[in-house]
Amino acid sequence: MTSKSELASLNCSLARALAMVGDSWSVLILRDAFLGSGRFGEFQRSLGIAKNILADRLERLVCAGLLIRENGPRYALTDKGRELLPALVALAQWGDRFASDGAPPMIFTDAEGRPVDAVALAAAGAPLDPSDLRVAPGPGADARTRAFLLSLSRP
Amino acid sequence: MTSKSELASLNCSLARALAMVGDSWSVLILRDAFLGSGRFGEFQRSLGIAKNILADRLERLVCAGLLIRENGPRYALTDKGRELLPALVALAQWGDRFASDGAPPMIFTDAEGRPVDAVALAAAGAPLDPSDLRVAPGPGADARTRAFLLSLSRP
Repeated sequence: MTSKSELASLNCSLARALAMVGDSWSVLILRDAFLGSGRFGEFQRSLGIAKNILADRLERLVCAGLLIRENGPRYALTDKGRELLPALVALAQWGDRFASDGAPPMIFTDAEGRPVDAVALAAAGAPLDPSDLRVAPGPGADARTRAFLLSLSRP
Repeated sequence: MTSKSELASLNCSLARALAMVGDSWSVLILRDAFLGSGRFGEFQRSLGIAKNILADRLERLVCAGLLIRENGPRYALTDKGRELLPALVALAQWGDRFASDGAPPMIFTDAEGRPVDAVALAAAGAPLDPSDLRVAPGPGADARTRAFLLSLSRP
């Protein structure tokens, strides 16, 4: 499998994010924390995973600063963890469309019960079609990233 | 590690999505395909992964219907694969904020060079604060999901 240090060393924010939350159980633990779970036993019952794996993933998420351990003990999302919500909802919506046979197990709404809109891309406030997305080297690009992006530019 | 069948069997679209793309290399292969890579050697050079792992992940992505193998041979995104873009951009933006020391390696823009907006949640067209997000059982909810969501409802 992918080692976390290999991923974290890539010159790519997506890879670095995956180094922190690329493990599927970690994502589902964050899901449960969003939904309101906090105690070890709550995560364990919801996910049905082995206790040693759950303990390991909780510790990793605390080390990565996505969860904090509070008295109780309970695990709670940090701001850094909560900011992952748009990415997770987008992934769940994709799963609704392509992996749930038209019958989503869960429905996301706002506090008034209105369905959450499909997460979509925009630029300067206008909807952005994926085929119009462009990628350019950023201030943190290394030589390899620059060469890679240059190699992809087609006339 | 998480087995794909365990994940796919959970009554959750997020888990089912992760069963298809929860492997970090798979996500980075999709990233490269979005960016324009198509040939085996292009993925291999960009990611620097072992050929046997790359071959395995490409085959899985073809089986899952996210890539198709075209003459050449080249791998190209399907619509199903392309629809993951909002989730991947959201995750990359999170990595920009929390794992790139303020210096993003890559910048996303539209075709005119305007930066892509931060991917955010909305309901009925209005911005949705993550703390106002609610989850309800959907048409595909099983008894366990219903009981779980009920257990989380607080007065």
